[in-house]
Amino acid sequence: MVIRVIQYGMGSIGTEIVKLLLKRGKEKRLTGAVDTDEDIAGKDVGEVLGINKLGVIVSKDPIGAICEGNADIVLHSTTSRLVDIKPQILRCVREKMNVISTCEELAYPIGFNARITDEIDAEAKRFGVTVLGTGVNPGFVMDVLPVFLTTVCKNVNRVEVTRIVNASLRREPLQRKIGTGLTVGEFQQKVEEKKLGHVGLLESLVMIANTLGWDLVIDEKIEPVIAKELLKTEYFEVEPGEVAGIFQTAIGSKNGENLIKLVLRMEIDAKEQYDRTQIFGEPDIDIKIQNGLFGDDATVAIVVNLIEAVMDAPPGFLTMKDVPFLPHLT
Amino acid sequence: MVIRVIQYGMGSIGTEIVKLLLKRGKEKRLTGAVDTDEDIAGKDVGEVLGINKLGVIVSKDPIGAICEGNADIVLHSTTSRLVDIKPQILRCVREKMNVISTCEELAYPIGFNARITDEIDAEAKRFGVTVLGTGVNPGFVMDVLPVFLTTVCKNVNRVEVTRIVNASLRREPLQRKIGTGLTVGEFQQKVEEKKLGHVGLLESLVMIANTLGWDLVIDEKIEPVIAKELLKTEYFEVEPGEVAGIFQTAIGSKNGENLIKLVLRMEIDAKEQYDRTQIFGEPDIDIKIQNGLFGDDATVAIVVNLIEAVMDAPPGFLTMKDVPFLPHLT
Repeated sequence: MVIRVIQYGMGSIGTEIVKLLLKRGKEKRLTGAVDTDEDIAGKDVGEVLGINKLGVIVSKDPIGAICEGNADIVLHSTTSRLVDIKPQILRCVREKMNVISTCEELAYPIGFNARITDEIDAEAKRFGVTVLGTGVNPGFVMDVLPVFLTTVCKNVNRVEVTRIVNASLRREPLQRKIGTGLTVGEFQQKVEEKKLGHVGLLESLVMIANTLGWDLVIDEKIEPVIAKELLKTEYFEVEPGEVAGIFQTAIGSKNGENLIKLVLRMEIDAKEQYDRTQIFGEPDIDIKIQNGLFGDDATVAIVVNLIEAVMDAPPGFLTMKDVPFLPHLT
Repeated sequence: MVIRVIQYGMGSIGTEIVKLLLKRGKEKRLTGAVDTDEDIAGKDVGEVLGINKLGVIVSKDPIGAICEGNADIVLHSTTSRLVDIKPQILRCVREKMNVISTCEELAYPIGFNARITDEIDAEAKRFGVTVLGTGVNPGFVMDVLPVFLTTVCKNVNRVEVTRIVNASLRREPLQRKIGTGLTVGEFQQKVEEKKLGHVGLLESLVMIANTLGWDLVIDEKIEPVIAKELLKTEYFEVEPGEVAGIFQTAIGSKNGENLIKLVLRMEIDAKEQYDRTQIFGEPDIDIKIQNGLFGDDATVAIVVNLIEAVMDAPPGFLTMKDVPFLPHLT
């Protein structure tokens, strides 16, 4: 059976998802694409990718594309905030299409977002489809991987996860997102306005805490990494004293003791990149991904690899902690 | 609801499983125990553990214990060879009890063993129960962990897994199992007689290959590690030229190219212990567990952590590649 797929969001992740789908052979067929960007709406998807035409036009109007596409599943990759994408997801659900989304806040809804996913869950059950929030961070490297490792622990006392990213190797939007080149004052103002910082660290922390059955007091800190010397990337020039990156920490504590600590450091002058998970328990586990997990590739992969798992899953809203891990690489 | 548990096999792993069950609180209750060892059969389980009596007697007769125990699940930890434990598993199944077994050959049945598990699968479905083969090696560190990591790969070209164990830190039976103190001639004879070597490397390899959809030519090699100087452990004294450990390799190849390579080196003089998985693909992943995953603790943990997942799973025979990864640490 051919699985018919709509790609919702043709940005940097969305276009890579389509490329991977095309490589995976004929069992998955792209039947629609949506993007509101004036530059690509109305064009053939193949044209957007710089390859031969595919006979699938990027629609500016999601409703039109989604009805006409008549797809089994929508791969959704637009923005980070759940409140913004809620109508997009619900529209897909009401067309009886399954959804996999990379929206960071959907990876593990907390606070008010949990009310939104309750609504999505109810609608998904009503229309008999499954909605999965996934991604690599949040969704894998700082939450699902640690949770997965606890499968071999007799008990867990404390969890610490550190992700160090050398942003100078990454795209311009990421360098901008971490505040590169700002003054410290500008950085702090943007943090207050919630215009700066990684979305998902709290989500990762709560996923780990809930899985372990821990009720924690949660705190998050976003600080600038300051350049000590003149730093240059392909896109930015950073004077000493200006911002060269972000140092974000989420901590979950109980009775004043830090039980979960997540550290995300993304800077343009990182000497080393890695992901490290330390589980303090029985046994202790100290695992390190040398050179780190490359987020863009990994996000694209996880979305496409989980298509079958989502198609087979019971209706409703799921997070990564509910999905069997078996990937489908065919 | 209280889950009633029988422990089948009260050896070093079995007794640790019972200890962990007792720590996990009242939601899981030990209702029976089985072991044929004359020294412990007939004793109270608490007595065997060196704690207060539990009111559960170790039965020498599995049939009696299993009927009387009237349990929901049997945790089975006796021997490595599937042909030997088949009647034990079938007996549990026919009493309508779920089973989690650490039998290495059950972790991923290959060759003739797959016929045995077909029979177990049919019986399990007939009696409405689930049988899971699990463990840490095979069952996690050299197979499930690599498979899990491929979830974030766009494609995988090659997989290499290395496990280095410093056997001098381990129990006497493990040191014996790897040939410590034998002459090279004795070692090779025992390998030929299949009395020496780790059971499970081929199982791990085939699990990875099948998950990736690779049809490979498979080869296994078991070689001695030779002592270069006088080596002493708590249990053995090894002269230079005698065996100090085992160096076991399983390779899966296609058209002469090695696509999966698993290396297990267990020796009494290992300078460093670790587990390393390298996935060559997009992205590359190079992950290392510093100091290695401690097998005994991890095996005990995985058995107990998967009780709920097995109780909730559909009837039949399962391997670790079929189970949702969510652990239950409550």
